[in-house]
Amino acid sequence: MPESAAAAPDLSVPDLAAIREAARRIAPHVHRTPVLTSSSLDREAGARLFFKCENLQKIGAFKARGATSAVFSLPEAIARRGVVTHSSGNHGAAIAYAAGRRAIPAWVVMPNNAPRSKEAQVRRLGATVRLCEPNVAAREAACAEVQRESGASLVHPFDDPRVIAGQGTAALELLEEHPDLDVVIAPVGGGGLLSGTAIAASGVRPGIGIFGAEPANADDAFRSFASGRVEPVGPTLTIADGLRTSLSPRTLAAIRAHVVAIGLASEEAIVTAMRMIWERMKVIVEPSAAVPLACLLEGTVNVPGARVGVILSGGNVDLDALPWRT
Amino acid sequence: MPESAAAAPDLSVPDLAAIREAARRIAPHVHRTPVLTSSSLDREAGARLFFKCENLQKIGAFKARGATSAVFSLPEAIARRGVVTHSSGNHGAAIAYAAGRRAIPAWVVMPNNAPRSKEAQVRRLGATVRLCEPNVAAREAACAEVQRESGASLVHPFDDPRVIAGQGTAALELLEEHPDLDVVIAPVGGGGLLSGTAIAASGVRPGIGIFGAEPANADDAFRSFASGRVEPVGPTLTIADGLRTSLSPRTLAAIRAHVVAIGLASEEAIVTAMRMIWERMKVIVEPSAAVPLACLLEGTVNVPGARVGVILSGGNVDLDALPWRT
Repeated sequence: MPESAAAAPDLSVPDLAAIREAARRIAPHVHRTPVLTSSSLDREAGARLFFKCENLQKIGAFKARGATSAVFSLPEAIARRGVVTHSSGNHGAAIAYAAGRRAIPAWVVMPNNAPRSKEAQVRRLGATVRLCEPNVAAREAACAEVQRESGASLVHPFDDPRVIAGQGTAALELLEEHPDLDVVIAPVGGGGLLSGTAIAASGVRPGIGIFGAEPANADDAFRSFASGRVEPVGPTLTIADGLRTSLSPRTLAAIRAHVVAIGLASEEAIVTAMRMIWERMKVIVEPSAAVPLACLLEGTVNVPGARVGVILSGGNVDLDALPWRT
Repeated sequence: MPESAAAAPDLSVPDLAAIREAARRIAPHVHRTPVLTSSSLDREAGARLFFKCENLQKIGAFKARGATSAVFSLPEAIARRGVVTHSSGNHGAAIAYAAGRRAIPAWVVMPNNAPRSKEAQVRRLGATVRLCEPNVAAREAACAEVQRESGASLVHPFDDPRVIAGQGTAALELLEEHPDLDVVIAPVGGGGLLSGTAIAASGVRPGIGIFGAEPANADDAFRSFASGRVEPVGPTLTIADGLRTSLSPRTLAAIRAHVVAIGLASEEAIVTAMRMIWERMKVIVEPSAAVPLACLLEGTVNVPGARVGVILSGGNVDLDALPWRT
């Protein structure tokens, strides 16, 4: 679109029916993840917690849902030309995985300062990695170049209704298994998971309290939620590397339509919550996935006695660089 | 029993009906743990693996099953006087947990060189800790003293049909969910888990291949399986601290009746398998729980293409002392 065009931003999001459709579409390709409980964490939080374990999902994160939803939405003739995305994290691996399941080519544009392990994972999953300078202009130019050369379809990490529909399927499964939840909390980075969760949860259980959870050191969603505009994320010094992203107008609109509040968590609480989940529940979560529990522990989401669904978003961490190593 | 008595050892074990009865008895007190799969680990092992996640069990180990089975088997008048056991590991925590569920007193005799964290956990769960010198005579004297003072019932960590019945319920659940397994593998220390697994699995699926898995550096079960006598464990230099125990005549008899073979795993393979489970499955397992996968990777249990149930026995590790820290 030419820069002079003042078209309104695309705010379209999936409805509950589209999320149910996505659930059918992705079912052969993703795990139905377990929901775990821990009486010891219930005591810590003063609430009854139901953890939807997307850390146990394919590629170790909920991103497998959105990526397979998008990749398997493409008409055959278009799919054949492949898909492209930009990501230094879980979405890149998820697109590589989804494209592999459909046996189509995939390109993942990554900044040349991304961890080597992430790059290796994407290659192992069969995608082609394109390295670029670590800035938005270089990233967009690299994606555009791949599209020009190959005709590949761009699958944005979160600003895409097909991706949002896929992410919403985790909450759908959680509420199928535990239909009487009072509250559901998801971490918020770009807002794909939170908006999908919000649409799914409010659809199947009107009146349920939906909360976002964000590091206080990357509080752009919190500020955007208050101002009604997409606020830039600014310099971020958070360990929760999956959440260092601004919302899009689309995800902000969906979040403002359904979410009660966005809780903020300190870095210290994030590490404490992360270690607590490892020690008490014996599952590995990455820092971003611990942010909802951190908000409950610090009381920035204060729902004593409630039945709370928590989306554990992912479990991809470097075991040689744990945050409690001294 | 006086040393001069030459009575035959008690070899009684539960049958399948007793294991089913234990399953009903413990159901209100333990998790029905999930069964996880990983296509990436399937490729590593050359088989289809179904992991029964007892690391996600109450107190982080299958021991919660045997302990609640035994504690809830006691008649009320006897239960009221409490239970006592000796353990420096998961069984102590399990007895403390089970006694707490039944609101009866519990004493756990621990060697005075046990990790402080284990002692703290047992106390947190409401049991009284009695420290003793780290040898068998001191341990037995301490248990006998508690029994004299309180009338508490001894619940042995593995040499007890009620405990074995409880441990067998994990395999029962696994085969309910995946009735077409070809093989099931469990780690073997004192043999409570392996004998319970063997009786349950051979009962519900005659002809299934049942294997034990043991560290090569603590190969007493392997040697006992061959000789038909309980061989002492000897000096053990294995990271798999849950498996540094000899069998009893009872568990050896049950194992010889049902088990195909006992695989041995090197220390290196145990650490590799442990880290693989953490990284690919995103669940925390202790070294002992990784021994079955280590046997599959090293081929000492060689079942290519089979559908293999693996009991992940526990997940209690010190996150500040991981075996891959350099």
